[in-house]
Amino acid sequence: MSGAAFTSINGFLGLVATALGPDARARAAAQDRNRQLTKPPGSLGRLENLAIWYAGWRGMAAPRISAPQIAVFAGNHGVAALGVSAFPAQVTEQMVLNFQNGGAAINQLARTFGAKLTVEALALDKPTADFTRAPAMSEEELVSALRVGWNSLDPDTDLLAIGEMGIANTTSASALGCALFGGPAADWVGRGTGVDEAGLARKEKVVDSGVTRHKGGAGLELLRRLGGREMAAMVGAIARARVDRVPVILDGFICTAAAAALEAASAGALDHALAGHQSEEPAHATLLQHLGKTPLLQLGLRLGEGSGAATAIGIVQAAVNCHAGMATFAEAGVSDG
Amino acid sequence: MSGAAFTSINGFLGLVATALGPDARARAAAQDRNRQLTKPPGSLGRLENLAIWYAGWRGMAAPRISAPQIAVFAGNHGVAALGVSAFPAQVTEQMVLNFQNGGAAINQLARTFGAKLTVEALALDKPTADFTRAPAMSEEELVSALRVGWNSLDPDTDLLAIGEMGIANTTSASALGCALFGGPAADWVGRGTGVDEAGLARKEKVVDSGVTRHKGGAGLELLRRLGGREMAAMVGAIARARVDRVPVILDGFICTAAAAALEAASAGALDHALAGHQSEEPAHATLLQHLGKTPLLQLGLRLGEGSGAATAIGIVQAAVNCHAGMATFAEAGVSDG
Repeated sequence: MSGAAFTSINGFLGLVATALGPDARARAAAQDRNRQLTKPPGSLGRLENLAIWYAGWRGMAAPRISAPQIAVFAGNHGVAALGVSAFPAQVTEQMVLNFQNGGAAINQLARTFGAKLTVEALALDKPTADFTRAPAMSEEELVSALRVGWNSLDPDTDLLAIGEMGIANTTSASALGCALFGGPAADWVGRGTGVDEAGLARKEKVVDSGVTRHKGGAGLELLRRLGGREMAAMVGAIARARVDRVPVILDGFICTAAAAALEAASAGALDHALAGHQSEEPAHATLLQHLGKTPLLQLGLRLGEGSGAATAIGIVQAAVNCHAGMATFAEAGVSDG
Repeated sequence: MSGAAFTSINGFLGLVATALGPDARARAAAQDRNRQLTKPPGSLGRLENLAIWYAGWRGMAAPRISAPQIAVFAGNHGVAALGVSAFPAQVTEQMVLNFQNGGAAINQLARTFGAKLTVEALALDKPTADFTRAPAMSEEELVSALRVGWNSLDPDTDLLAIGEMGIANTTSASALGCALFGGPAADWVGRGTGVDEAGLARKEKVVDSGVTRHKGGAGLELLRRLGGREMAAMVGAIARARVDRVPVILDGFICTAAAAALEAASAGALDHALAGHQSEEPAHATLLQHLGKTPLLQLGLRLGEGSGAATAIGIVQAAVNCHAGMATFAEAGVSDG
């Protein structure tokens, strides 16, 4: 599909609405195969469910993962000027350079699991508007960012891990989560990359102010008003993967907040997505509960960059490889109890 | 070290007692490096601790994992004749053939994470004695099995995942755990590979009977009376790795019960070992609590074969690769907050 696949939010949502579910026949065939493999039934626990889920979305009874992709998006935020982060705003761009030079955590994780890393920096010289004073993005800016994500998938990609970089974007994610699901701002803010008490108090005020100002919106309109370009790009990539039946691994708090806006706009849009991990950012658990997603990993990560999603690639590979590679009881001459 | 490294339990424990701890200088250097890497302090959570732990045991500031090994041991159990398993005893040998032919889950996991798989079948034609009537093994049999494990490490191995296969060995592990830590037999039994209610009731009776008969033993003497050859071999391999400073990933309930007997016999003998996962077998959580080990993964596995330990190799690789491969703030020109 070309870069001009959509030119408006409604056009985007129209495409998402065309997406099919998993292939029921492939799923049933994968389940049938799973029952015959040389292990007690159910003994591989979640790895069995993962393999069957993956097979359904790929439309094959015993698929392999040959081209995992980690797509990282970077954006700058107007609210960074309000003292809500432990790091200065220029770190977004410095870290993009670090990604390009292979020096970041996500580069090492991509190599560890044989994934292709793609990095898209979205108009870093033009931060979103301060959402305590105006909507973060115009509709044009939002659509443009959705399109960057939509076009970021490699044609061969058969598993997509999603991540982000953006100084102050836990503040945006907190505001978006709070606006989508309600509750006091204090329940939605955390220390992000490590703000102190005063920073945390500022963050809460900023979130409260933004949510109050933009009351009444929903779904992608809230993403436009409170989110960021990298968050919109993640939504675009997740949606494209949904349409192309590419399974997705979500990363942490910011990624999940963006994904939640998509699900709010189009129920079922995250059926192909699993939670790679539960981060240390306290409201991430709340978001996962709202989405009904059980994280694969819980390792105390709070880095972003797609690091939790990337680490979970290994688990999905393990699941898929067991399913595709194991012998059946009949093939191996093992008594099946 | 040759196969004749020890010829008695005391000889074995004497060798274990010579083992050194992690290298404090390498550990400090790894910690220092960790502080300089391009990420907010602590943001890689448990991955940071894993990398520093690994560096200390390997005696290097920024080691890599180049030769992970998965060592699987198989043994047969006298108590299998008492109807405690959902599978017949001949499945132990059939599964060993499956391992050798590459058809089991553990073969796929070894390939997924680039690990060498070694399989040792211990006197499968000679099950241990039924522990409700006699000690499972003589001292000679125990020492011989410890030695198989001791000699199973590849000289190059720099990360060791441990696993087992043995029909009825959850019953042995339950008895060993119950004898080591106390409490009613019912708290120590679970469904293993999937016994029904009647089988579970038989299992509880068998465990209770064995623990009552062998009251008064401790540590490796309890392993001799209630354990199995594959469990003793795991103890031998874990101990050899401790002496050689090779970090170990423990697998599930049976592996952890065997490891607990070693720790009971020689405090600190598991300092180089982490819990790869928490299995579905309910008493595994109890064992991990007694050992003070927090599992890396919780995926509902209950297969054995080293499957949980092997899946955790990917997490340790992720941790070590981030630590060794990331740029420092100075190298990358990133502001460090």
